[in-house]
Amino acid sequence: MISYIQSIAAQASVDKALEAAAAAQESADFAQFTVNNLWILIAAALVFIMHLGFSTLEAGFVRKKNVVNILFKNAMIICIGLLTYCLCGFNLMYPGDFNGFLGFAGVGLYPGPDDMTAAYADYTYWSDFIFQAMFAATGATIVSGAVAERIKLMPFLIFSTIFVALSYPITGSWKWGGGWLDELGFYDFAGSTLVHSVGGWAALAGIILLGPRSGKYTAKGIRPITGHSMPLAAIGVFLLWFGWFGFNGGSVLSADPELVSLVFTTTSLAAAAGGVGAFFCSYFMTKSHDLSMVLNGFLGGLVGITASADSVSITSSIIIGLIAGVIIPISVTAFDKAKLDDPVGATSVHLVCGIWGTLAVGIFGNFDEGTGEIMDQLIGIVSIGVFTFVVAFILFYILKVTMGLRVSEDEEERGLDMGEHDMRAYS
Amino acid sequence: MISYIQSIAAQASVDKALEAAAAAQESADFAQFTVNNLWILIAAALVFIMHLGFSTLEAGFVRKKNVVNILFKNAMIICIGLLTYCLCGFNLMYPGDFNGFLGFAGVGLYPGPDDMTAAYADYTYWSDFIFQAMFAATGATIVSGAVAERIKLMPFLIFSTIFVALSYPITGSWKWGGGWLDELGFYDFAGSTLVHSVGGWAALAGIILLGPRSGKYTAKGIRPITGHSMPLAAIGVFLLWFGWFGFNGGSVLSADPELVSLVFTTTSLAAAAGGVGAFFCSYFMTKSHDLSMVLNGFLGGLVGITASADSVSITSSIIIGLIAGVIIPISVTAFDKAKLDDPVGATSVHLVCGIWGTLAVGIFGNFDEGTGEIMDQLIGIVSIGVFTFVVAFILFYILKVTMGLRVSEDEEERGLDMGEHDMRAYS
Amino acid sequence: MISYIQSIAAQASVDKALEAAAAAQESADFAQFTVNNLWILIAAALVFIMHLGFSTLEAGFVRKKNVVNILFKNAMIICIGLLTYCLCGFNLMYPGDFNGFLGFAGVGLYPGPDDMTAAYADYTYWSDFIFQAMFAATGATIVSGAVAERIKLMPFLIFSTIFVALSYPITGSWKWGGGWLDELGFYDFAGSTLVHSVGGWAALAGIILLGPRSGKYTAKGIRPITGHSMPLAAIGVFLLWFGWFGFNGGSVLSADPELVSLVFTTTSLAAAAGGVGAFFCSYFMTKSHDLSMVLNGFLGGLVGITASADSVSITSSIIIGLIAGVIIPISVTAFDKAKLDDPVGATSVHLVCGIWGTLAVGIFGNFDEGTGEIMDQLIGIVSIGVFTFVVAFILFYILKVTMGLRVSEDEEERGLDMGEHDMRAYS
Repeated sequence: MISYIQSIAAQASVDKALEAAAAAQESADFAQFTVNNLWILIAAALVFIMHLGFSTLEAGFVRKKNVVNILFKNAMIICIGLLTYCLCGFNLMYPGDFNGFLGFAGVGLYPGPDDMTAAYADYTYWSDFIFQAMFAATGATIVSGAVAERIKLMPFLIFSTIFVALSYPITGSWKWGGGWLDELGFYDFAGSTLVHSVGGWAALAGIILLGPRSGKYTAKGIRPITGHSMPLAAIGVFLLWFGWFGFNGGSVLSADPELVSLVFTTTSLAAAAGGVGAFFCSYFMTKSHDLSMVLNGFLGGLVGITASADSVSITSSIIIGLIAGVIIPISVTAFDKAKLDDPVGATSVHLVCGIWGTLAVGIFGNFDEGTGEIMDQLIGIVSIGVFTFVVAFILFYILKVTMGLRVSEDEEERGLDMGEHDMRAYS
Repeated sequence: MISYIQSIAAQASVDKALEAAAAAQESADFAQFTVNNLWILIAAALVFIMHLGFSTLEAGFVRKKNVVNILFKNAMIICIGLLTYCLCGFNLMYPGDFNGFLGFAGVGLYPGPDDMTAAYADYTYWSDFIFQAMFAATGATIVSGAVAERIKLMPFLIFSTIFVALSYPITGSWKWGGGWLDELGFYDFAGSTLVHSVGGWAALAGIILLGPRSGKYTAKGIRPITGHSMPLAAIGVFLLWFGWFGFNGGSVLSADPELVSLVFTTTSLAAAAGGVGAFFCSYFMTKSHDLSMVLNGFLGGLVGITASADSVSITSSIIIGLIAGVIIPISVTAFDKAKLDDPVGATSVHLVCGIWGTLAVGIFGNFDEGTGEIMDQLIGIVSIGVFTFVVAFILFYILKVTMGLRVSEDEEERGLDMGEHDMRAYS
Repeated sequence: MISYIQSIAAQASVDKALEAAAAAQESADFAQFTVNNLWILIAAALVFIMHLGFSTLEAGFVRKKNVVNILFKNAMIICIGLLTYCLCGFNLMYPGDFNGFLGFAGVGLYPGPDDMTAAYADYTYWSDFIFQAMFAATGATIVSGAVAERIKLMPFLIFSTIFVALSYPITGSWKWGGGWLDELGFYDFAGSTLVHSVGGWAALAGIILLGPRSGKYTAKGIRPITGHSMPLAAIGVFLLWFGWFGFNGGSVLSADPELVSLVFTTTSLAAAAGGVGAFFCSYFMTKSHDLSMVLNGFLGGLVGITASADSVSITSSIIIGLIAGVIIPISVTAFDKAKLDDPVGATSVHLVCGIWGTLAVGIFGNFDEGTGEIMDQLIGIVSIGVFTFVVAFILFYILKVTMGLRVSEDEEERGLDMGEHDMRAYS
């Protein structure tokens, strides 16, 4: 009888112990959720600062008379990007169940469950939204530099709105929304193709339809038009690298220690190798130490590693970055030879190195069969490239025949700051 | 007998399990504490970078001849803010038990318990101090822009010291220290009133006593005095937005996933909507695309959402920001019509949008009865406004009659950089 | 019989409870590991942004004609620093078991265990590498400012490569690698000596071998050569302070709430006190309000607190910073009197305040006997100083007699931007 009572008592204690262990497990899980979620939010803030990076980089690389204009465009793009992503972009890019090509989960943000922490395994619904929204705006920002110093303000803003609201999320859904490219095995960790090439293709469409800045390609050859402030450009590039810790690091979608630390390391080494690659290649080509090439070499390395930062070795990350850096001076020269005038080198950085980085997944990526194979990478590059280029070309074309894309020769000569804004950047 | 022994053994095992569960719970709680505390510290670093944002924004909006002076003031304010908050501000603002109007927990920092992690539920005593100290300095920074280009250095520094050491913490204690406004139900999440309007009222007092810059309001009308560098101003605004993730996000006072992610989202969308509101309103008013209005529109949206970032819906946050953005060009014009000369628009951004944001709590806030009601919000706005304005006015007035507030006409003409610092910003 | 079965069942439940508690413990430990690791990574990103801080600070303090050159050097140093640290620096600095003076764990990065989270108690192998690699590059960056406006590009880059690949890691291993200075009881929390003085000694060697800029010390006395942009310099200093939260805060090597929050507080207050100290001291010396002194005062305070940020009281941190700030104008004047020309004041900031901070450990540090005693601090300062200065002097000397260190007088006159880069910073 005594032992019977004792075992009843013991059973009650055991239940208490089980409950206590379950409560501890729940607390531990919530702590893990909290740190994962916090990292996504900090990463979103870091991606936000990339918009300042783009603003100052582009401002530095244009002439003094077009600085207000480029800052104005960058400021408006972040507004447009966030608001349209809230309105429709997020639900186009992550439509839940869809046919793999086009889906839409509805206008505006999902009100969310009562318990927001139940939305995803590692972060809340709002964290997911704000991180992805900061990404979305970068696509259009890439375009603004390439078409600088000659595009009219309003057509550019209309283009950006439609591009970031519809085109970017649709191609994004093909992979990150779980669409047909994802099913195929196409791999693009943080967006060498989905973000950077997409911006680059749209930039290319704009460049073609706009034509070069007046005086750039003359009968006597290519006349370099240098930017007005190298410190601004340098500030921009360093801020972009800083923000890239969030861009790539946050794309782990948790604070997983192994993956995030690997991504920080591969990202940094690729950027450094990109600088070295551009240093040697540009010196070899021109016998001078060109700061703008080294700065774009950093960015080339960063774009190049973006598709594979979580899935290559350290050595591979250095090789990927080095090649991206070597590509930069060659590509910039090639675009100039083709009379495609890109004041900031955005097409070389984002389009060409974006393609390189996406291919590099197939060469260096540590994957099981069926993921990131070179042929699937090519299919992803081409399909997204064709879709984006065509959409951007049509959009720009419609704007060209309706509103006109290009400022008048006189305004281009005087500068867009006075023409579009009646302001000067410096006084 | 066997079962008796067994149940003794079982009891011992149960005790072990209970202990193990308790240990796991403690570890989980500490992990949670660590991530909460880390976020407060990172948020403090982000609020710190707002001081660079204010510095570059104000430097960009003043003329070349007054740039060293404005940078010098901003640099000294962060020193003054941190040191006086350590000396007395922190213990005025968070006095523990007090009468609700004025309390003081003693000079210097509380040495703290042996186990610092026991100070608060979610962060240490030092984390609380450094986060709040970074806030305190922002109040005086708001003033520096508004009184720029004509105020003498030493009176300004003396004003800032007294203002940030005494006035800001006293009104702060009324709400955040658990004082009478807190008891009333007044709600101000991260300081639309407690920080931004407070800075704005002090700015207004300074502007009135100083008078406008010479040549600004002439017989022929208002002569715009444009800033010397729009890139600097843009850098400032983007850095302020970046820092606001810490300002608002850290004001959750933990890394609570749901609240922090909501705050990041409402804060960003309000800023974006503020830019759009200012874009359209200023275009409507002047038919030009004014970059300084869009930049101040961002800030207006940020100030506007600050009181309610944790307690409104996404749609409400966009409306709050949009209205704040629309307010900016109207308010800037109104101040100019009243011949209140504010070189950087600080009163429009921080005072007017701060009032708007505090009222918005009463309109859009999701609260139970008794919290954030519009009448209580008004009482908070008016009581803090009257106290701050009167204190600031008296302080500035005493300085005016003793030391003089305004530099000589000749110095204003030559610029304060040579007059006060014997340096030029650029050479 | 019944009770026998019951006790068997109870035992099974107890085992389940023990397992559940063990699982909860493991989850809690992993959450703790994740937040510790995340902080090291965020700290690494903050240290990265110090490179932008150094770039803009140095760019602001040089003349317009040498801006591209200083930006180029800073950009290359981050590349060189990261890549050589990957190749050999990391394994020189943290060689594992070694003789206390020199050890090498092998070329390249250790491939790491299968489970990277098992590498250290609080962070992964990659986190350790990238945090330390960001530190390594700062050493060489300190040099670049001091030798600015007259050193040839290629010798400087060769010097930086060898210095950061070999010299910095070897002296670093003496303390942080567990070498002889560590055994002695020498204490240097985050590198007042190991990073800042090391950079400062190398800078001093360079300055001596290069000689002053032409026209600086004339028969008529010292001719001040002012920097070309105070806003750039201010941006640099604020970014350095911002990055210092990672530099010092990350050196806790975990997110330990008590220590990290203490370090944030002491670091900030020392910086603020440094600004105040430099303000008063420079006013006393020159009767003017010298912005560059206040900015360098911040940096002096930051360097000064770096050795002891985790182990002094709040009051001590203010005193340490204040003295460092007072040192700045005195030291800058003394170097000028000795005709040691340092365009940015790097030797005063990093060398002199680095020594002061290391000594301050012996004066203010809260340590048990045997750690941080003043004599051991002196031994550390002198041994690392002698080693570094001799190595740097020999390196620079070899470069001087082989390649030449100094640009031609004509190039110095025209500026290094045209001479070395065929570019202008502004157009």
